[in-house]
Amino acid sequence: MKKVLILGGDGYLGWPTAMHLAKKNFIVHLVDNFSKRTIENENSITPLNKIETMKTRVGLWNQINNKKKLTFSFGDLLNHRFIYEELKRFKPDHIIHYAEQPSAPYSMAGRSQAVFTQKNNIIGSLNLLFGIKKICPNAHLLKLGTMGVYGTPNIEIEEGFLKIKHKGRSENAQYPMKPHSYYHCSKASDSVNLYFATRTWKLRATDLNQGVVYGIDTPQTVLENKLSTSFHYDHIFGTVINRFMVQAASNMPLLVYGTGNQTRTFLNINDTLQCVELAIKNPAKKGEYKVRNQFTEVFSVKELALLVQKASREIGIKAKIRYINNPRTEMSQHYYKPTNKSFLKIGLKPKKISPKFIINNLEKIYKLRKNIDKKIIIPKIKWNN
Amino acid sequence: MKKVLILGGDGYLGWPTAMHLAKKNFIVHLVDNFSKRTIENENSITPLNKIETMKTRVGLWNQINNKKKLTFSFGDLLNHRFIYEELKRFKPDHIIHYAEQPSAPYSMAGRSQAVFTQKNNIIGSLNLLFGIKKICPNAHLLKLGTMGVYGTPNIEIEEGFLKIKHKGRSENAQYPMKPHSYYHCSKASDSVNLYFATRTWKLRATDLNQGVVYGIDTPQTVLENKLSTSFHYDHIFGTVINRFMVQAASNMPLLVYGTGNQTRTFLNINDTLQCVELAIKNPAKKGEYKVRNQFTEVFSVKELALLVQKASREIGIKAKIRYINNPRTEMSQHYYKPTNKSFLKIGLKPKKISPKFIINNLEKIYKLRKNIDKKIIIPKIKWNN
Repeated sequence: MKKVLILGGDGYLGWPTAMHLAKKNFIVHLVDNFSKRTIENENSITPLNKIETMKTRVGLWNQINNKKKLTFSFGDLLNHRFIYEELKRFKPDHIIHYAEQPSAPYSMAGRSQAVFTQKNNIIGSLNLLFGIKKICPNAHLLKLGTMGVYGTPNIEIEEGFLKIKHKGRSENAQYPMKPHSYYHCSKASDSVNLYFATRTWKLRATDLNQGVVYGIDTPQTVLENKLSTSFHYDHIFGTVINRFMVQAASNMPLLVYGTGNQTRTFLNINDTLQCVELAIKNPAKKGEYKVRNQFTEVFSVKELALLVQKASREIGIKAKIRYINNPRTEMSQHYYKPTNKSFLKIGLKPKKISPKFIINNLEKIYKLRKNIDKKIIIPKIKWNN
Repeated sequence: MKKVLILGGDGYLGWPTAMHLAKKNFIVHLVDNFSKRTIENENSITPLNKIETMKTRVGLWNQINNKKKLTFSFGDLLNHRFIYEELKRFKPDHIIHYAEQPSAPYSMAGRSQAVFTQKNNIIGSLNLLFGIKKICPNAHLLKLGTMGVYGTPNIEIEEGFLKIKHKGRSENAQYPMKPHSYYHCSKASDSVNLYFATRTWKLRATDLNQGVVYGIDTPQTVLENKLSTSFHYDHIFGTVINRFMVQAASNMPLLVYGTGNQTRTFLNINDTLQCVELAIKNPAKKGEYKVRNQFTEVFSVKELALLVQKASREIGIKAKIRYINNPRTEMSQHYYKPTNKSFLKIGLKPKKISPKFIINNLEKIYKLRKNIDKKIIIPKIKWNN
């Protein structure tokens, strides 16, 4: 049985990935420094559903799944001795690296937040690379990247690399990056380091440039309420579809930033699980830096608002759409054509967003509506203030 | 009179730049954390000529140039309060940012050196960007970058950006980066952050992607022995032409890494001064991220060894060339065609390398030969060990 180390195992994606892979007979060990819970406290935000301590969640999972137990260690990638010890002890075949500060708005809140984000993400990942080189150079690293590193270029977005023709010559270059925030910049830096490490040290790495994830449930989170993952709807960690669904379920207008013509890539949380599993089963070769764009659909923010509005009406919710000043600096109108061929080729079956999906989520959110704090949905962090 | 803040004012380039700009009637304030002197101590290396303390150098300069005084503050960019205070107090028109750990081999020596390099360079620069935004958003930042961020692509190297045609559409993208070391990776990350900051916050920045600098003297360093700049010939800070000249002057073979067909860009230390002054006089506009490739000539390492060998013979030194295993991971044979149009257009008059220049430097080095420690020239740090 293959061993998978999940860094950032307490997170929105880390926890469901752990349960999913345990179910699929991987031996799974989790690591987290709980920095996201600290940022929640710092900003007085909480996920929609109460999230149990890691000990409770792991304990409950292990009670239900006696033969597919999870283990957990508390620790920080900035402490290299900690991660070196984990690698030595657990000897992973695959390392899924979710342990990065994932919020673009948080990284733009001020100097200390930007510095925390870049130090945590870039230096944490660098410690990890040195650990892998020293201790388990054949382990396959799957690092969660973001589609946001590409920005919104006027040409098609390929996967990590681009064959460039220039003055009669050609080069297969790392795809040019134009990140949207200091968070996205940290991911660009990570990718530069990771590509360098794979070609210099012959490591094996897959960079999963992921779109915006949405959804509350996976087959494992619904087994018990206490196995829920941390669904955020606030202005810091809440992604756009999740925010719209919470706004609809709580009789708020759907707040569209700017024109709403900003177009991005999206995927269902269950497709994150599917993609990560596919990427494990189709690992990068020794010395290979493989990039896969991890998303299933492309929407503008306005299209998403209309989708959520329409589905809401089917269950009697009259959600309004309100256009507000865009707190972010981003192009209000742009070309956008990314590809996700690489995952389709190895078997991804996209779960596309549907009215039924939205309605199911709205109903679940509605049941939890007493937990909703409307104030924390309003964007407070401006890119240029 | 315009005010110039020089970060990294104790360094090989920072100190001569300070004297040069003071001479040209700029008001110059220097900052340094002496981290390079710490790395010297860590590795038991010293520059060829003894370097006086900053207080002595500044004091001596001010004695000679009563009306063109320099000032200095000790401090670290990682301490944002320090740099914020300096910006508030000095109110610079231009900020020349040399304050980065500049050695590729040092960054490859191990985890702690790689982490020091990336933290110092990326986070230090990020603190500086936040300080500029908050305190002096109209100041012009000149950040020293490196030609090494481009790597050795199979297409012509333009200046910072590349017009890419792809599937019938086009985009002016940041030139793809393929850095050679964790040091070079830190510079790539800096550039990503800097481009983001200029377009989001409307700052003014010039990224000077510099080649490998060589030479000992500038018109100011020769005024007094105690005004010398720190000329390194060791395996950590010594650049290739400087190392070859020291090897020739001390009867060592010229050690060529690998085949010597690795080709890079070069410039005389006096051309660094010329370029920086030109870049100040032709500043980036508000919101502009201007990239200038800062070099004058292109040579392979082997060509340089032959140049130094030939010049040495003219004064009776029979320098041998020895090819040793390349400690670095780099392409042994590659296409290389970078442009430096941008500086030529604003008036750069290159001081090309000549036998006379090499002989002058050899003679100066020969006089200082008792200071040479041959052991520290031998490369000890391997990229892939």
